[in-house]
Amino acid sequence: MTLVKVYVTYKKSILDPQGEAVKKAVHGMGFNDVQDIRMGKYFEITVDGDSPTVKEDIEKICDDLLANPNMETYRYEFVQSEEV
Amino acid sequence: MTLVKVYVTYKKSILDPQGEAVKKAVHGMGFNDVQDIRMGKYFEITVDGDSPTVKEDIEKICDDLLANPNMETYRYEFVQSEEV
Repeated sequence: MTLVKVYVTYKKSILDPQGEAVKKAVHGMGFNDVQDIRMGKYFEITVDGDSPTVKEDIEKICDDLLANPNMETYRYEFVQSEEV
Repeated sequence: MTLVKVYVTYKKSILDPQGEAVKKAVHGMGFNDVQDIRMGKYFEITVDGDSPTVKEDIEKICDDLLANPNMETYRYEFVQSEEV
């Protein structure tokens, strides 16, 4: 069993309206030390077995489904785990 | 400058309908090795300066704004960085 953590974020050049809204709310709470907030999506994908193509599979899933390559970028990490 | 990465996910006991939908789509793409997908939110928070209360501030922001404590749980990590 393999756990893959995928992080999808807007590219740096793309305005992140949700992050801006959260930042305004945080400033409204009085936390003016907060300079910037960017919001993204986070996926925990559990993959069965030890498929030799798991890396390619994850990249294909990210490219075709989880991230919009025009506006978003992603990174992923593998977490081998018995308990998952 | 401190970068804080916050991950908000549904509690294990809570059904994650977005994750279920993504899983179905992934299976539809033919990746049947994928056993489970859970979806969450990801925040990159840039905090100015070295406030001694930054840990408390982040927890307050998470509790009151970013996560719904009834259904969601969160974790965070600090990334000290010059380049941020």
